Amino acid sequence: MDKLHHECGVFGIYDHPDAARITYLGLYALQHRGQESAGISTSDGLRLTVEKGMGYVADVFEEERLARLGGSHAIGHVRYSTAGESSLANGQPILMDSARGPLALGHNGNLVNALRLRRELQKEGAAFVSTSDSEVILHLIARSPERSLENAIVEALRTVLGAFSILLQSPDKIIAARDPYGFRPLCLGQLDGSHVIASETCAFDLIGATYIRDIEPGEVLVVDGQGLRSITPFPQVQRAFCVFEHIYFARPDSQIFGKSVNRIRLELGRQLAREAPADADIVVPVPDSGMTAAIGYAREAGLPFELGLIRNHYVGRTFIEPKQAIRHVGVKVKLNPVRDVLEGRRVILIDDSIVRGTTSAKIVQMVRSAGARQVHLRISSPPIVGPCFYGIDTPSKQELIGANHDVEEIRRFVCADTLKYLSLTGLMTAVGEGRSQYCSACFTDKYPIPVDQEQQRSLFRSL
Amino acid sequence: MDKLHHECGVFGIYDHPDAARITYLGLYALQHRGQESAGISTSDGLRLTVEKGMGYVADVFEEERLARLGGSHAIGHVRYSTAGESSLANGQPILMDSARGPLALGHNGNLVNALRLRRELQKEGAAFVSTSDSEVILHLIARSPERSLENAIVEALRTVLGAFSILLQSPDKIIAARDPYGFRPLCLGQLDGSHVIASETCAFDLIGATYIRDIEPGEVLVVDGQGLRSITPFPQVQRAFCVFEHIYFARPDSQIFGKSVNRIRLELGRQLAREAPADADIVVPVPDSGMTAAIGYAREAGLPFELGLIRNHYVGRTFIEPKQAIRHVGVKVKLNPVRDVLEGRRVILIDDSIVRGTTSAKIVQMVRSAGARQVHLRISSPPIVGPCFYGIDTPSKQELIGANHDVEEIRRFVCADTLKYLSLTGLMTAVGEGRSQYCSACFTDKYPIPVDQEQQRSLFRSL
Amino acid sequence: MDKLHHECGVFGIYDHPDAARITYLGLYALQHRGQESAGISTSDGLRLTVEKGMGYVADVFEEERLARLGGSHAIGHVRYSTAGESSLANGQPILMDSARGPLALGHNGNLVNALRLRRELQKEGAAFVSTSDSEVILHLIARSPERSLENAIVEALRTVLGAFSILLQSPDKIIAARDPYGFRPLCLGQLDGSHVIASETCAFDLIGATYIRDIEPGEVLVVDGQGLRSITPFPQVQRAFCVFEHIYFARPDSQIFGKSVNRIRLELGRQLAREAPADADIVVPVPDSGMTAAIGYAREAGLPFELGLIRNHYVGRTFIEPKQAIRHVGVKVKLNPVRDVLEGRRVILIDDSIVRGTTSAKIVQMVRSAGARQVHLRISSPPIVGPCFYGIDTPSKQELIGANHDVEEIRRFVCADTLKYLSLTGLMTAVGEGRSQYCSACFTDKYPIPVDQEQQRSLFRSL
Amino acid sequence: MDKLHHECGVFGIYDHPDAARITYLGLYALQHRGQESAGISTSDGLRLTVEKGMGYVADVFEEERLARLGGSHAIGHVRYSTAGESSLANGQPILMDSARGPLALGHNGNLVNALRLRRELQKEGAAFVSTSDSEVILHLIARSPERSLENAIVEALRTVLGAFSILLQSPDKIIAARDPYGFRPLCLGQLDGSHVIASETCAFDLIGATYIRDIEPGEVLVVDGQGLRSITPFPQVQRAFCVFEHIYFARPDSQIFGKSVNRIRLELGRQLAREAPADADIVVPVPDSGMTAAIGYAREAGLPFELGLIRNHYVGRTFIEPKQAIRHVGVKVKLNPVRDVLEGRRVILIDDSIVRGTTSAKIVQMVRSAGARQVHLRISSPPIVGPCFYGIDTPSKQELIGANHDVEEIRRFVCADTLKYLSLTGLMTAVGEGRSQYCSACFTDKYPIPVDQEQQRSLFRSL
Repeated sequence: MDKLHHECGVFGIYDHPDAARITYLGLYALQHRGQESAGISTSDGLRLTVEKGMGYVADVFEEERLARLGGSHAIGHVRYSTAGESSLANGQPILMDSARGPLALGHNGNLVNALRLRRELQKEGAAFVSTSDSEVILHLIARSPERSLENAIVEALRTVLGAFSILLQSPDKIIAARDPYGFRPLCLGQLDGSHVIASETCAFDLIGATYIRDIEPGEVLVVDGQGLRSITPFPQVQRAFCVFEHIYFARPDSQIFGKSVNRIRLELGRQLAREAPADADIVVPVPDSGMTAAIGYAREAGLPFELGLIRNHYVGRTFIEPKQAIRHVGVKVKLNPVRDVLEGRRVILIDDSIVRGTTSAKIVQMVRSAGARQVHLRISSPPIVGPCFYGIDTPSKQELIGANHDVEEIRRFVCADTLKYLSLTGLMTAVGEGRSQYCSACFTDKYPIPVDQEQQRSLFRSL
Repeated sequence: MDKLHHECGVFGIYDHPDAARITYLGLYALQHRGQESAGISTSDGLRLTVEKGMGYVADVFEEERLARLGGSHAIGHVRYSTAGESSLANGQPILMDSARGPLALGHNGNLVNALRLRRELQKEGAAFVSTSDSEVILHLIARSPERSLENAIVEALRTVLGAFSILLQSPDKIIAARDPYGFRPLCLGQLDGSHVIASETCAFDLIGATYIRDIEPGEVLVVDGQGLRSITPFPQVQRAFCVFEHIYFARPDSQIFGKSVNRIRLELGRQLAREAPADADIVVPVPDSGMTAAIGYAREAGLPFELGLIRNHYVGRTFIEPKQAIRHVGVKVKLNPVRDVLEGRRVILIDDSIVRGTTSAKIVQMVRSAGARQVHLRISSPPIVGPCFYGIDTPSKQELIGANHDVEEIRRFVCADTLKYLSLTGLMTAVGEGRSQYCSACFTDKYPIPVDQEQQRSLFRSL
Repeated sequence: MDKLHHECGVFGIYDHPDAARITYLGLYALQHRGQESAGISTSDGLRLTVEKGMGYVADVFEEERLARLGGSHAIGHVRYSTAGESSLANGQPILMDSARGPLALGHNGNLVNALRLRRELQKEGAAFVSTSDSEVILHLIARSPERSLENAIVEALRTVLGAFSILLQSPDKIIAARDPYGFRPLCLGQLDGSHVIASETCAFDLIGATYIRDIEPGEVLVVDGQGLRSITPFPQVQRAFCVFEHIYFARPDSQIFGKSVNRIRLELGRQLAREAPADADIVVPVPDSGMTAAIGYAREAGLPFELGLIRNHYVGRTFIEPKQAIRHVGVKVKLNPVRDVLEGRRVILIDDSIVRGTTSAKIVQMVRSAGARQVHLRISSPPIVGPCFYGIDTPSKQELIGANHDVEEIRRFVCADTLKYLSLTGLMTAVGEGRSQYCSACFTDKYPIPVDQEQQRSLFRSL
Repeated sequence: MDKLHHECGVFGIYDHPDAARITYLGLYALQHRGQESAGISTSDGLRLTVEKGMGYVADVFEEERLARLGGSHAIGHVRYSTAGESSLANGQPILMDSARGPLALGHNGNLVNALRLRRELQKEGAAFVSTSDSEVILHLIARSPERSLENAIVEALRTVLGAFSILLQSPDKIIAARDPYGFRPLCLGQLDGSHVIASETCAFDLIGATYIRDIEPGEVLVVDGQGLRSITPFPQVQRAFCVFEHIYFARPDSQIFGKSVNRIRLELGRQLAREAPADADIVVPVPDSGMTAAIGYAREAGLPFELGLIRNHYVGRTFIEPKQAIRHVGVKVKLNPVRDVLEGRRVILIDDSIVRGTTSAKIVQMVRSAGARQVHLRISSPPIVGPCFYGIDTPSKQELIGANHDVEEIRRFVCADTLKYLSLTGLMTAVGEGRSQYCSACFTDKYPIPVDQEQQRSLFRSL
């Protein structure tokens, strides 16, 4: 499917007798944030043990592997990555042993000065084992002249620039940190007296933990035997919460950035109906991404909401194409039109975004061949005009249809009768209060942290 | 999840250069009809080759295995089965070599005189390799004194009693047959001039085939080099289409028994709203089974439709429970409540059926702990009072909560504020014309074909 | 390697609390008799459970699979098979459920009237699930009008013709039987008061069982709660022990046909030295098959025995050839010459047999390129002039170099300086007393049981 | 089996179109030097790609994985490791990216100052990803102020102390180096004009390469587009070739340290016969380790050489023990006595060494229970009195029976009638010229390089 992808999710728990299994569950709930690899690191107070592998959480961790992960503290990580870098060497948590002892790192986000720092560190003699930007953090900590681990971490995090919601684990501590912009979410919770930290609150729901508060932008939170200790070492900056988390990435049942994802998505749909009505019979979501917005749209427009496209969830590891091409089999493996719903109808089709446009064109075509008289495509966010440098896997600018074509050209490309996007204002209206705290660079080309050309290019190739 | 299960789906294609891969795709679209094992048999005109394995279609058939399945005719089968019988020996297609040459069989349905026939055949010297009722058919064909294969098949099918939508493959023919009651669906289509047969039309959509017509109840359809030849060898009986196919089993994007599954499900919801309104704020489906009915209910009731429960689709092969019990983790792995939707609301919760009631109780509890003020459970079918003997995997009567408790008792068990089922009349109203043609034995205890005690028991244990 | 292959080994144990695991060990010791598939069937007194899979015993049976094999009686089977038939459907034990109840069969040997019987049984309505000749036995038993299982088995075994050392398992019995010719070995032993039966005594050694006696040619031995009961239902015939078991197939540490395999192989080497001396410096075996004979040869000839070829035992599942051909890499993966031993020497190279001659040619060439001045190839058995129809996988007559070429032609083909085979008389001298009891059809073309053309052909193609 | 274990083998090839596959073959031939993990790194001139995994070479590298290893230069590594460290993180080649660009390392041997260097490097900010001593080398190179890669490597290798036969790969070079003591072998060869380097010459034989010469102790050999360039940067020291390579580790078909392994082993047997004769009937090797020495012993003693113990080579990944203990099943799975050979005989049993003595005791017992009248155990090397710190996996001193008991005590422990070891003088006589160039620390407790207590302990626990 033609979607943007999350690059990571993190989870951690301190002082729980079943730490590895709770982390397994937490990662399971965060699976939508990364499906390529999964890893868990545990501590027994003295040593760290890490297990990681390629694939889904439930496939990477079988009984025997979880059993090797003893100890009462754990951090875990799920990862999505582009093809060139999708090897196990880049999987997280990354475990390194320095003069400060062993330290494991799980990172959600992307550093924009990683390449420069890597070069500088290499000049000073550092040797890297991955192409991951995250490894820079561990080398900085290893080299910091600061005495205490906390101070070394703080110093390292002051050096890096970009998006980071991270968990670090030493034998006796877990340290959570979020960059001062707050690009990615990071939440604190409690389970049976143990502290838990997760990218999204849906992980708390699964394990039965209670949400306490967000780790604040710019906060470094130390969890150890003494309890919690919060540090705020960064100069204050304008916050830049990723608005796309609300539009598509986060699970609708999560609370992030202090707001219900589901409610905002519903509101995006309502706002879209106000801005971009259409003379039509039914409102049909592209499942699963367009579901909630379509409900909002239908409600606001007073039109029937219908499941005109069915998603097939029995997708295996690999899917073998027939030798002889079948039209659109790639999309049809995932989506099938319901002829009875679509036939003879004027359809408003709701999706959350268009990236390259190729899948949208196939879906519109599929809806038409199931008999729809008209297809009015409505997108619950503005056109994507620029890539993300803060932890979302986007194609390069050349591949983004919204960066290179106007709406009418895109409409012709996807063969819709009409095409409307939600306006930026409409998006922010739906998000509601605190709208100035969001990053919407992918829609505006206005980047909260500038990124130099070389670093930009580095995102689209392997080092 | 506490659901009834299909036991099988079948697919076949005659005279297509890419027969095995098309069958792979067809089975993929029918995956919801059986997830335990999958098999494909192909013919090159002289010999049959069969490959089968435990698991999902996309996992059983990797490139190498499909490559071994040469030939231009193919039949395939997906199978669900109860624990005791879930071995590869019971997987289908079953391939047997008799005096008539090799013959492969894929069967959807259940024979009610299989046990008696098996005993009789054994007395005559037959040796069985599986505990499957379907194997009886192959032995009957092998022993038939009839000269032609068609006649032998007809004779065998006249001997068996019960539900069968089957595909048989000889080196140069595919024979499709449906029992005279028509319990299970079976559809005929066309792809590039080749004939295709499938349990449901959604398989045609994926491969780009055109639906032609249903294989009629009591029809035996021979597909060979001469084209199609239809035989109607059975005495006419009152039809008995499985109404549960409409309620839950079939995919909503399929047409079965000449009707759109999606439209009937929508109608079930509307009818339920008429029969069983509730003073509430929102209508929430139990996903995915209650989705369409909930849309219908909300529309008829004029209440907002809301996604108050989110389904997690990243489920792996195995799921490891935490050592220390987490409340309801089994259900929460699949479903998570959206607090923002449910909090403070009076919720109408829509599901398609209640089997044992255990899952429903957990879901109601989950909705409540997410803050719902009231939970009004509405079921889009009547209480299940008896097991199915015609191809659906149901628990025994003792385990069916609807067979042993009245609605008020069930309400107390699931802890709902109110509980209402759709009435049988309401069900049939939603189904529409031809309502007398349906089997509703699981709701009425009136079985179209009587089943003796021993055969009944045989369904609930391995032979 | 260019070798003849065994087709099977069998093992059984009656009334032992650890029956499945003991059988696993027994099969492990018999692995040389079949490496393609392995299976175990167990009985808990009422039901039979079978598990089988492709591959080595230790790979097919992991902990979980053995755990499913409860019960205190077990039979097991290892199988080698030619490519065309190497599917799981042909794996053994074959389990079938007839009017006599479930029955499992493990068979070592080959029936020469299987094809005719299969046709007759099919005419009477039998349906076969495999292409294995062994399945005929189960159908015959299923159809026998005899009252008791023993009598039915006896009747079936009187009907089949050919080589069979078999184990049959009903819920409460294990029946061992050996054809009246006694082609294949079958031994009886005792372990902690339980009876054990195995193809070779090496299986007894591993499990710590004591060898009691051979199952006699023509003996049917019933093991059940009453103990042992021996029947001798066949008319007496001239015995026909497979002499190749002594030459190559059996493990040297086994006792078969009442004789030590190791001692006979040593004697074959001595006899060969007497018949076919050579003016040379050292005696070098082709490992592992020529080891013992080479020791005998060297001792008799008074020449040094040297390990001039090293066998690599770390062979994995698959071996990937380099793109660019490396000379003889196929043989070199298994054997490597020891230059220090061979250089400048006149070498007597000992192997047990030559089948197609291709591998021998490569080995002679390898020895020469390691610097040997002369290579005198000596074979510790006569030329193979005909295929075996009694349970050994041989190529067809056209492929047997000994059937189509005289010794001088073979010498030229393998590029040896001299080539000598052991004479038939020499072979029988080495075997010692009872020499008239042996089948040497592959050396003489004199078959103890005639085999018709069609049956012969059936060995070399799949049915 | 109670054996010492190699820790590694290396292989490399420069400028060959099929570099990865040739390396695969080379590692395959070196499999006896490490069976726990295998890895290959290739270069296309710009980038390095590494693939590694746990298990045998032929199991780690399937077609797809080899296909990912493009490029015309490759190095590979096989590794044995003790349980605590046997994770993939410790697998080699280790690939690290420093200011000098990417560099891959494969190391055979063990550094005795690794722990101290690791601490110093960590103090300077280095972060380690493994517990392997080898990683120290890469960090030293990364930090070296030297301009050229060669000089940095030389500087790093001057800093480390201990045994190293290593291969380093940069995008355009392969650098081979051997410590000045020359503990481990390293050989140079040629294949179709490409240079190849391997731990033993048996790797050359398999790929059809020609042995040129050994990499000299203290030599650093640079292979690049300009050809070969040899540097000798170390002060000269007394050579210390590992004598155990001759006794047990190396393959008998290899030439190492300029000598034929097979010839020395034969000589060890002869010398043992001279030093420690016995009044007996036959000479029996413990296969495979005692084979060649037993041939030598038998020849010198004028006694018959007999295969009284058979080794089972069909060992799978895992082996499941029976629930109910079977005496010595662990040993019997690998070895089986040949009763016919042993019964009533006075047996001289030849093995290469005794480590803990437990296996020897079981083998002696096994030989006795097969009927041997007397068992005279002869060991073709002196008692092992100290662990190796230079790349052999030995148990700690406390576990070495030879370090804690005199020969008579050991004899009683293994229950032999007599027990004799080869003397150190006898060992050196067998080795022949250059005997002063050998390390025999494990027999003498005289270590060529002193090892401090902490480093010693570090060998027997994970860091």
